[in-house]
Amino acid sequence: MELSQAVSAQTSLVQRLLDGVATIGADPPGITRDAYGRGENAAQALIAEAGRALGMTASLDAGANLTLRWASGHDAPPVLIGSHLDSVVQGGNFDGAAGVIAGIGAVAALQAAGIAPKRDIEVLGLRCEEAVWFGLGLIGSRCLLARLPDGALELPHARSGLTLAQSIDGCGGDSARLRQNTPLRDPATLGAYLEVHIEQAPQLVEANAPLAICLANPGNVRHPFIRITGEDAHTGLPHRFRHDAALAGADLSLSLERMWLEEEAQGRPMAVTIGRFHTPAARHSLTAVSGGFEMSLDLRAYDAAHLAALEARLDAIAAEVAARRKVTIALGERSAAAPGPMDRAIVEELSAAATRCGIPAPRLNSPGSHDANNFAASGVPTGMLLVRNRNGSHNPHEAMETADLMAAIGVLAEWLAR
Amino acid sequence: MELSQAVSAQTSLVQRLLDGVATIGADPPGITRDAYGRGENAAQALIAEAGRALGMTASLDAGANLTLRWASGHDAPPVLIGSHLDSVVQGGNFDGAAGVIAGIGAVAALQAAGIAPKRDIEVLGLRCEEAVWFGLGLIGSRCLLARLPDGALELPHARSGLTLAQSIDGCGGDSARLRQNTPLRDPATLGAYLEVHIEQAPQLVEANAPLAICLANPGNVRHPFIRITGEDAHTGLPHRFRHDAALAGADLSLSLERMWLEEEAQGRPMAVTIGRFHTPAARHSLTAVSGGFEMSLDLRAYDAAHLAALEARLDAIAAEVAARRKVTIALGERSAAAPGPMDRAIVEELSAAATRCGIPAPRLNSPGSHDANNFAASGVPTGMLLVRNRNGSHNPHEAMETADLMAAIGVLAEWLAR
Repeated sequence: MELSQAVSAQTSLVQRLLDGVATIGADPPGITRDAYGRGENAAQALIAEAGRALGMTASLDAGANLTLRWASGHDAPPVLIGSHLDSVVQGGNFDGAAGVIAGIGAVAALQAAGIAPKRDIEVLGLRCEEAVWFGLGLIGSRCLLARLPDGALELPHARSGLTLAQSIDGCGGDSARLRQNTPLRDPATLGAYLEVHIEQAPQLVEANAPLAICLANPGNVRHPFIRITGEDAHTGLPHRFRHDAALAGADLSLSLERMWLEEEAQGRPMAVTIGRFHTPAARHSLTAVSGGFEMSLDLRAYDAAHLAALEARLDAIAAEVAARRKVTIALGERSAAAPGPMDRAIVEELSAAATRCGIPAPRLNSPGSHDANNFAASGVPTGMLLVRNRNGSHNPHEAMETADLMAAIGVLAEWLAR
Repeated sequence: MELSQAVSAQTSLVQRLLDGVATIGADPPGITRDAYGRGENAAQALIAEAGRALGMTASLDAGANLTLRWASGHDAPPVLIGSHLDSVVQGGNFDGAAGVIAGIGAVAALQAAGIAPKRDIEVLGLRCEEAVWFGLGLIGSRCLLARLPDGALELPHARSGLTLAQSIDGCGGDSARLRQNTPLRDPATLGAYLEVHIEQAPQLVEANAPLAICLANPGNVRHPFIRITGEDAHTGLPHRFRHDAALAGADLSLSLERMWLEEEAQGRPMAVTIGRFHTPAARHSLTAVSGGFEMSLDLRAYDAAHLAALEARLDAIAAEVAARRKVTIALGERSAAAPGPMDRAIVEELSAAATRCGIPAPRLNSPGSHDANNFAASGVPTGMLLVRNRNGSHNPHEAMETADLMAAIGVLAEWLAR
C-alpha cells in the first residue's frame, strides 16, 4: 500500500482514539483530564492498549510517563514522538492528546505501508503539561530530562492536595529516582523529538492551511506581581497634583503594547499579556484616586537575544512611565523560560515531507510553549507540527478537524519513512 | 473694638473648639466622627454649648441637624452659616467641622465688636455629609431641603446597620416628617447660605494664599459599574486576534485623561477619576488575556452645559475605543449631580470683604462637592470660602493652619457686618 493510502486508512483508528479520550475526559461543557488522576490515567491506558495492538512495548518511566516502543532492531538513536495526555479543567479535547494519537496513527500507517523503521520509534504520553495542576507546566518532560526546578516535587496538586512526588509515585513513577536530578534518558542518545500539537491561535484558520511547520516555541519573562505606588487622593484633586497608580498601570500596559506592535512591524514576533490588572480590592472606590495598582506581565519571544533586548526595553519603559506619572513601579518577582527553537534540519525535512505529501504547510512560530521546549533546551534535535484549530485552546470550544490531524500524521509518517 | 481685633480675639475660642472636636474624634492615626453616632453627636453637643454661650438658641430639625440662631429682632430672611460635623473613617479634623466652628467664631467676633445683626444669623451643624456612611453624601442638607433620593431613608448605616430613618430618629430627628418630602425650611425664606470649608487640593498652598472665594462646586456624572467585554484567550494569541478587555479599559481611561487635559488647556476646568479599575478577581491569571474588565468613572465639571458636552464626548470615546479594540463597553448605571454655582453677588461681596480685610483671596473652583451644592440647587443665594489646606482631605494628614481659618472668619464677619 502507498504510504498516503496507508495514512488515510488510519482515520478510523485515529477517530476512535480521539473519541475515546473525549469520553474519558467528559466534563460538560468541556473536557477535564486531571494530571496524575483518573482522566490522565485512563487516557494513558487507552493509548497503551492502542500501542500494544501495534506490537509496541509499553513502559512507565520514573516520571510515570508512558513510553511505547516500536523496536527496529537497529542501534541508531531513537526518534521520539510525544505530547501530553492531561488537559486544563473544562478545556478542549485536542490540546495534548491529539499529538500522542498522531504518533500512534503514524506508526500504524508505516506498518500498514509495510515500511520497516531504520531506528526505534517511540511514542510518549507525557504527564501533566498544563500549569493548572501544580502552578508549573511541562512537568512530564521536565521529569524525563531532569529539568524540574528546586522544590517542585513538594508542590501540592490543586485538586488532590498530594505533592507532586506522591502523585508520581501513586501512578507508578519513582520520585526517589527523580531526586537524583539526572535525565531519565540521556539527551545525547536521542535522535530526535517530534511533537504534533494544535495551534493555540487561529493563524492557520486565517492562512487556510491544515498545518504548519513550527519554527520556534516562545520563551518568556514573567513578573507576576508588579506593584505601582502613587498617592491616594480625593476625586476633586486637579491633574497636576495627582500620583494616580491606576492610570500609571494603564500607561505602562499601553506602552508595552506599543512596543509589541513596533517589534512585530520590524519582523520580530513576540507577545505581551497583562493578565491580572487591578486597583487593590480593599480600596476600590468610586470617588478616590487610587494610590495603589497591581498587575502581572508575561513577555514572550522566540529568540533569547530578542527576549533580553525586550527586557531592557521593559525596564526603560517602566522607568519612563514612573518618572512621568510621579509614581514608583516595582516589577518584583521575575521568572523566565528559555525559548525553544526548532532544529533547522528537521524544519527543512518536515517542509520537504509536506511538499511530497502535497500539503500546504507554512512555517509558523508557536503561540504557546510545549514539552518540545524541554527537549530543545536539552539539546535534542526537535521539531513540531502545528495543526489548524479554531477558537484557541484551554476552552471547550477548541475545534480541530480530524482531516487536519490526518494531514499532520501524513507529513509525520512521510518524515519517519525517511 | 474694631472688627478685625474682635476676630483676632476669638482665636482661643476657635482653637478650643478645633481641639475639642479633635478629642471627640480621636481614632489614631486619624479622626473619626461617625454620622448619627457618638462622634457626630458629641461634636454637635460641643458646638451647641458654644452657641448657647453666645446667647444663641439651639434646636434640632427633622433631619437632626443642629441650628443655632442669633436672633436679630428683624424680619429679613436669615443668613445661614453651615457645614457638617461628621468625618470619614480615620480622616482629618478639619473637613466639615472647621466650617461650623467658623460660624461660631464669626458670631462671637461680631458680638465682641458690638455689631448688632440686621437679620437673624444661624449656624448650622449639618449631619452626615460624607458618603462613607450610607453610600450617599450631603445627607443633612438633603434632609433640610427635601433632596433625598427615593429609598434613601431605607439605606443601612455602614457601621451600625440601622437604616437612615432609624439613625435620624435615634438622634432626635423625625423621619416621618422627612417622608413628606417638602423642605424643612422654605428656600425662598432663606437670605443666603455661606459655607467655610478646607480646600481638598493644595491649590492655595501653591498660590500662597490663606483662602479663596469659591466660584462653583463641581457637579458630576458617575458610572460606578462600567463593564468591558472582550474574549478570554491564551497568552500566546497574536495581537490581531485579541479582544483584550483590560487593555481596552486602559485605553478608555487614558483617552478620558487626554480629554481632561485638552479641556483644561482650553480653560474648561473638570476632572476624571477612575477609582475602581480591575480584571475580574475570579479570572486573575498570569497567562491569560482577560475577556472581562470593570471600572468606575467619576466625571466632574462646574457648569451644567459643560458636563453635558463631556458626557457626549464620553459616549463617543467609549464607542471609538470599543470599535478599535473589538470589545463591547457598557457604561451601565448612571448617576448625576448638578454643579453648584455660587451666587455672583455673594462672590463679589466676599471679594470686597477680603479686600477690606487686606487678605489675598483668589477665586477658585472647589475641587469637591459640599452641602452648599444643595442650597445652590434649591435656589438659595450661596457662597463659599475655601481655606488653605496641605495634603488634601479624607486622610489623617489634612493640615489647615488656625491662622488661615481666622482669616476666613475675618472675611466672613466682615461680610456679615454688611
